[in-house]
Formats: sequence, structure tokens, C-alpha cells
Amino acid sequence: MSLLVVGSIAFDSIETPNGVAENILGGSASHFSMAASFFTQPRLVGVVGQDFPDEHRALFASRGIDTAGLTEAKGETFRWKGRYHADMNSRDTLEVHLNVFGTFDPVLPERFRDSSHVFLANGSPTLQARVLAQVRQPKAVFADTMDLWIDTQRDDLLALLPRLDGLMLNDSEARQLTGEANLVKAGHAVRRLGPKFVVLKKGEHGAMLFGEEGVFVAPAYPSSQVLDPTGAGDAFAGGVLGHLSESSAVPTTSGLRRAMAYGTVIGGLIVEGFGLDRLKRTDRSEIDRRLEEYRNMLTF
Amino acid sequence: MSLLVVGSIAFDSIETPNGVAENILGGSASHFSMAASFFTQPRLVGVVGQDFPDEHRALFASRGIDTAGLTEAKGETFRWKGRYHADMNSRDTLEVHLNVFGTFDPVLPERFRDSSHVFLANGSPTLQARVLAQVRQPKAVFADTMDLWIDTQRDDLLALLPRLDGLMLNDSEARQLTGEANLVKAGHAVRRLGPKFVVLKKGEHGAMLFGEEGVFVAPAYPSSQVLDPTGAGDAFAGGVLGHLSESSAVPTTSGLRRAMAYGTVIGGLIVEGFGLDRLKRTDRSEIDRRLEEYRNMLTF
Repeated sequence: MSLLVVGSIAFDSIETPNGVAENILGGSASHFSMAASFFTQPRLVGVVGQDFPDEHRALFASRGIDTAGLTEAKGETFRWKGRYHADMNSRDTLEVHLNVFGTFDPVLPERFRDSSHVFLANGSPTLQARVLAQVRQPKAVFADTMDLWIDTQRDDLLALLPRLDGLMLNDSEARQLTGEANLVKAGHAVRRLGPKFVVLKKGEHGAMLFGEEGVFVAPAYPSSQVLDPTGAGDAFAGGVLGHLSESSAVPTTSGLRRAMAYGTVIGGLIVEGFGLDRLKRTDRSEIDRRLEEYRNMLTF
Repeated sequence: MSLLVVGSIAFDSIETPNGVAENILGGSASHFSMAASFFTQPRLVGVVGQDFPDEHRALFASRGIDTAGLTEAKGETFRWKGRYHADMNSRDTLEVHLNVFGTFDPVLPERFRDSSHVFLANGSPTLQARVLAQVRQPKAVFADTMDLWIDTQRDDLLALLPRLDGLMLNDSEARQLTGEANLVKAGHAVRRLGPKFVVLKKGEHGAMLFGEEGVFVAPAYPSSQVLDPTGAGDAFAGGVLGHLSESSAVPTTSGLRRAMAYGTVIGGLIVEGFGLDRLKRTDRSEIDRRLEEYRNMLTF
């Protein structure tokens, strides 16, 4: 099995009620691949600018992340600046500079084209489709999306959905896509648009899985120290796809449930530090220990 | 075992995005005792006005609810009118007329004073303490509270807490009471104020249990048809205390977890109709079936 992720690499500047960080490594592909690296050696495809320091490449290498698809373009790396509200669940974007990510048109290295598992991180559905066309015979394709694409590229998104094994999106996006206010109805309605599985993310309230065999509910891991929620959704996805690619070829309901539990644990870990700090300080044994704690928290 | 509940009985007028109901039977003691009636024969203490119709008394009787403590006072029954927002989670109170409930000073019938399980529904902590003083040797006392009492009668509330086996309160109230923004820290901090167990209610996102043996997470039952969220918290409490009083004398962690699962199922049922409509149309076998569905939804 081999896991490909295509997404953004960014410098994040973040203010939360519990602290501040400037220009730290972020972006969907960074969070995803760091999370997935506890299960597999993810293949990362992304673009950075000439300002991208060797220390970040070294971090990826130290986690076994294959950066053959990490290209450097003329210009600066994508930058994002945001401020979280007191509830740690909502935030304001203060600055976005797409820089080299604005013209990102990924070309997969030849040896990435046989990837069995693919995660198309949030991006335009046309770009996601162009990436997918470069993978020969994927066994499991998952994608993320956002309100912008539902609003501006709905037709392209609808064309992509039947080609997906799984769509990950948040609660408000599911409502926007389907027009259903009730989340359970919305989750089922998204599935009728094509993807075999729908993973509905609810931020600090966890996630739900909708599939042929019904609903799985994964409440968030109750973290007692949330420093920075940035990247929790992508780290969750990295845990899900990482474990899936480690454990099963074609995704099954039971495999995906277990993978979501791992994703939940990693999503609960990453928020305990700024950026990737906390994931740098964990290992598979802590993750497995938390998985058993999580299972115990749900047992009656 | 015998379960006593002291709380409000009201006529509710409710607007939700899915419909309207006028002057239907509501109030914490009504929702609680209807929910608890699937496990035990709850003893209800409350006050109504001269306008309280026989049909509601007949409903209580049909569910085995002991109404020896239901007194009729001169005047009108408590009335509440509210309107839910599109998200079904927040609401505006449009009208409150306490009427006879405004001077409610409960006196327990002699034969209720040996109750083993007690639920002090939301009310002033001084009134809750006066009720508790009338019960001889309760084995399990649970209470609900609200922002008003935390704000205006904090000292009386703090004096009550060490006498409780369990305090039920919602997330914002736990934050208000403890000054902790993080919910996990807030839950533990409430427990340090005295109650053996803290049940933290998160509305449509479920509940968490904090006890000596750690945290239990009970996400809400995913209802695909939410007509009216009114009373979900009290029905949840009725399921919890109903099952506790059916199954165990002194509450244990495992007993309370199972009881919270039952409470979650009943909370998920009551929202499927206005007021008590849906609880009138269920039975223990449907509740037990949903409990197993709920368990399956959480299994990985």
C-alpha cells in the first residue's frame, strides 16, 4: 500500500487565546502527511517558494515522508494568518497570500502514479480531477472540499463525487451542498451524490461516518489543553488515510471506523501544540495508548 | 428503589423551523418523569394552576407516574413561550409567566420521603436544599442548575454541591461556574466543588461524564428528524435517573455510563415530536433497540 497526498504547504501565523506563533510550517499537506507518517510513508505533492527552509524538509525526511513531489517555484511560499476566538472553534482569517500556491498545477512524479490510496486535500475540484487522472489504479480515493468550491464550482465538484470512495467535509459545507439542515439527512444526501462514504467533520464535536451500513459516530477526543486548532481536520484525515493504507486495500466500514478513531486521536493530539509541535513529540505507542483510552471513554 | 423528581410543570408554546405548538404539556418535571417512566414509577412533585386539565393527569397516570405530590394552587399554570433558530440548538424565550410556580415551596407527601433516588430539577439552590432536607436517607441525589443561579445564588449553590452525587449542567454553565474555558478542565473543576459525578450536557452534541474513574463521552443520538428540542435535557436526565434507580442503589461509574446511554436514547427520541408526543408513542422495546443501535454507532 502507498498513500499519496496532494495539497498546500504554508507558513501560518496564528493567534489563539492561549498564545501566538509566527510563520510556522502549516498547510493541509503538511498536517496530513505528518499525521499519516505514524502509519505509512506518505508521498507528498506540493509546492513551496524559494524561502522554504531546509529545516522543514529535514522534518519531513525524519518522519519518512517522501518529498519527491515537493517542488520549489520562483517566489514565496503560501502564507496564512488567522486569529481564533475565545471558543477556539471559530476564527477570522486576517491575511492570505497564495504566492506560489496560486498557480499550483501538480504533476505527479512517475513513481507516485501507482499509489493505492489518494487524499486530495482541499482544492478546486478541477485541480483535484487533474491529479486523480494521473493516478493509474487507486484502490481508495478520498477528497476534502470547502464552501468556496461548493459555491463557485458546484458542477465540477458534482462530477468528481462519484469517483470518490470518500468525501470529507464539515457540517456547514454538507448543509450548503445538500440544502438539508438536519445533519443526518445531509450526510446521507451527500452520499447519494456519489461517494461511497461521507465523513462529516464537526470540529471540536468530532466526526460522523455515513456509509452503506449506516452511521458511525466519533466524538472528538476530549483534550484538556487546546493551544491551536489549526490543522486538526487535516491531521484527522491523515490519521484516517494513514491507518486505512496500512490496514486495508479497499476501504470497508469496519476498517474506516477504526481509521476514524485513529484520526480522532491524532486530531486530539495536534491541537495540544502550535502547528506541528505536538506531533513532533509523539510516537505510535502514545497514539495506540490514546486509542485504547478513547475506546474506553465510549464504552458503556 | 424509588425515584423522586421535583420540578416545574408548564404549558409550552413553541415555534421551530419545523412547526408550531400552542400550550402543550411541558416543564422539567413533566419531561423528566415521562422519560423515567420507562424504567420505574417516578414520584412527581410539582404545582399546577386551576387551569390544568384532567387529560394531563390521565397521561401521567397511564405511565405509572405517582402524582400524589402534584398540588393544585389558586391561579394559572406556569407558561413558557419560545422560538428556536434555524440551527435548532439556540432559542429565544418570548414569554415567561411563572404564575403558581413563582411561589412553589414543595412539601413532600410523607410516603415520598423514603425515596432512594432524587432529582432536583432546575430551580433555586435554596429551594433544592429545602426539598433535600425532606428526604430521609437518599442513596443518590442529582440536581440540575442554570446560569441564573450561578449568577445570583452562587454561595447557596456551592453549599449544595458537596451534598450531591451528581450535578447536571450545560457546557456554558460549567464554564461560568468554574471560569475554565476548556470543557474537560471545567468538568473536572466542577467535580472538585463537591459532586461525586458531573454530567456536562452539550445540547445536540451530547454529554460527558466526569468521575473519579475518568471521562465518559456520550455523543447525541443522531436523530434524522428533529421537530422540537424542548425538554431534551430533562428527558435525558429522566432516562439517566430512571435507569439508575432501576438498576443500582449507589451510583457507580459503569452504572452511570449505561444510564447516560439510556438518557441519550430518550433525549434523541423526544426531539422527534413536539413536547411529549414522541414519548407517548414509544415503549421500552423501542428504547432498548435504539440503545443497541447507539452502541453499534460507537463501536470500532
